[in-house]
Amino acid sequence: MRLFAYQGSDGNESVGALIKGAADEFVDLCATDAQIPSSLQSIIQDESLLHRANAAMNNPNAVRGKTSSVSFKAPIDKPGKIVCMGLNYADHAKEGGNARPEYPSFFMRGPSSLTSHLGPIVKPRVSDKLDFEAELAFVVGKKARHLTLDNALECVAGYSIFNDGSIRDYQRKTTQWTIGKNFDQTGAFGPWLVTPDELPTGCHGLNIQSRLNGQVMQNANTKDFLWGIAETIVLISECMTLEPGDVVITGTPAGVGYARNPPVFMKAGDICEIEIESIGVLRNTIVDE
Amino acid sequence: MRLFAYQGSDGNESVGALIKGAADEFVDLCATDAQIPSSLQSIIQDESLLHRANAAMNNPNAVRGKTSSVSFKAPIDKPGKIVCMGLNYADHAKEGGNARPEYPSFFMRGPSSLTSHLGPIVKPRVSDKLDFEAELAFVVGKKARHLTLDNALECVAGYSIFNDGSIRDYQRKTTQWTIGKNFDQTGAFGPWLVTPDELPTGCHGLNIQSRLNGQVMQNANTKDFLWGIAETIVLISECMTLEPGDVVITGTPAGVGYARNPPVFMKAGDICEIEIESIGVLRNTIVDE
Repeated sequence: MRLFAYQGSDGNESVGALIKGAADEFVDLCATDAQIPSSLQSIIQDESLLHRANAAMNNPNAVRGKTSSVSFKAPIDKPGKIVCMGLNYADHAKEGGNARPEYPSFFMRGPSSLTSHLGPIVKPRVSDKLDFEAELAFVVGKKARHLTLDNALECVAGYSIFNDGSIRDYQRKTTQWTIGKNFDQTGAFGPWLVTPDELPTGCHGLNIQSRLNGQVMQNANTKDFLWGIAETIVLISECMTLEPGDVVITGTPAGVGYARNPPVFMKAGDICEIEIESIGVLRNTIVDE
Repeated sequence: MRLFAYQGSDGNESVGALIKGAADEFVDLCATDAQIPSSLQSIIQDESLLHRANAAMNNPNAVRGKTSSVSFKAPIDKPGKIVCMGLNYADHAKEGGNARPEYPSFFMRGPSSLTSHLGPIVKPRVSDKLDFEAELAFVVGKKARHLTLDNALECVAGYSIFNDGSIRDYQRKTTQWTIGKNFDQTGAFGPWLVTPDELPTGCHGLNIQSRLNGQVMQNANTKDFLWGIAETIVLISECMTLEPGDVVITGTPAGVGYARNPPVFMKAGDICEIEIESIGVLRNTIVDE
C-alpha cells in the first residue's frame, strides 16, 4: 500500500491509499471505514488497522478521491524522534572532506523542522545557505531494541522520501550539525509511506535523485549505502529503543549544493524535487520566511 | 509552585505541587480539582489550569500526599523536542580540549533517553563509559520564535534539573555527539518544575553540583554560563519554533568523569545526585542493562 495523511478540501483530516494503476486516484480510508483513524501513525502500528485498510481498498463501495484536490501532510507529523544519518554514501563523505567513516554520524531533527509534500521549504531570514539533500526515509512500526541483521527489517512500517534541508552556515558554526538541520519547515517528508511488500528488501538498489528547477543535482543508488537499512537498524537499536512512529533518514549522496563549484543554494521560487525509484517524487517550492 | 508528575501507589497518574515549608508533603492537584488533567505538559501551557492549580493549593480541603509514597515521572515524558547545549561553561569546554566557543554546540536527545527522579540510569551492555553531567533544564510553556533578550524569558514555564548521562565512547565515535547522548534511560530529568516566580530571573547565580556516591564531582554556578537562559532562547528561537513542552538543557560545568585523571565512570549500584540551589536534588541509582 501507498498510504498518505492529508487534509481534504472540506478541512477534514484523513488517510488515503493510492489505487494501483490509477493516475492520481486514492481510497479515503477513514470515510470508507469509520473504524480507521485519521492518524497514519496509529494505523501503521496496529496490524488490525492495516488489515482494515487493505479491506477498504478492496471494498466495492470505497470512497474515492483525487490527490490533486487534497493537501498532503507529512506522513508522521509528530514523530517521537527523527534519527538522521550523515555520510552514508562514500562519495558524499568525500565531497565534504570527510574520510570514509567507520561508524555513521547520527544527529536528530525535531518535528518543528518538518514540511510536507507540495508544502513550502522555508529559507530563513538569517541565512542564504539553504541546501537540499535527497534521502530515503523509513518509519518504524514496531518497538525495536537490540535487533539483529536477521530480524531488523521487521520493525519497518514503510519507506518514504525526505529532503534533509540544511542551513549550511549554521550547520558549520560548531562541530555539531544539529542547529543547521532544525530550522522550521526545512525538512520535507512524503508524499506517502510505501509498505515494504511493494519494494525490494531493505530498499536495496533504488535510484535516488534530486532535481533543482528540473536540473539533476544528485543521482545515486541505494546500493551504494555504506550502511544498508538492516545494518542501520542494528546500529541504532544497539543504543536506543526505536518506537512506532519514529523516523530514520538515511543520509544523502554526492552532489549537494554547497560542495559544487560554484556553490548552489536554494532561493524563493525554486522547485526542489527528490525522486526515489518505486517510491515516488517529493516536490517542494522554496519560500522566504 | 513546584509541580511534579507522578504515579501514586494506586497506579493512577497525577500531578502534585509541593507544600511550602513541609518536609515532603504535597497537594494532589488532580484529586483536589477534577478539571486539572494528569499531564503536567497540558497544565503548563494553559493559564487557566495554572490558576486552578494555584487555587487547589489554597483549598482547605485539598487532597494531600507524601512524596515518599509516590513514583516520580519525568516532568515532561514525551517532549516534542529536547534541545541540548554543549560547552556552556568555559571551564568544561577547556577540560574537553575545546576552545572557548563563539556559538553554542547544540544537539538533541529523544524521549526514549529519559529517566525520572529516583528511577534508574541504565549503563548499557555495550559500554563501560557512562558519565554524568549536571545541567539546569527549562521547559517551554508558550510557542516561541524570534524572541529578543527583552521577552525571551516569557516563554519559560519552569526550571528543573537534568543529568545529561553520556556514553563517552559512542559520543566520540564520530564528530557528532548525538548517539552517545541517546542511550535508553540515560538522561535523568526532575524531580519537579519550579515556576519562574520562585527563582532569580533567568536562574542566574545558582550553585550547581553533581555528587557521585556522596563525593562532589562538579561544583559551579549558573553565573558562569557562557550563554544565559535569555540569550539561549534568543539563539534557539532564531532558528526554530520552541513549542509548549519542549525541553532545553543548558550544558554542564567542569568535573565530568571522563576528563578526570584517572577517569571516573558510573557503574551499577552507584548513586548520582545533581543539586541546583533553590530547585532541589535529582537522585538516581545506576543499574546494568
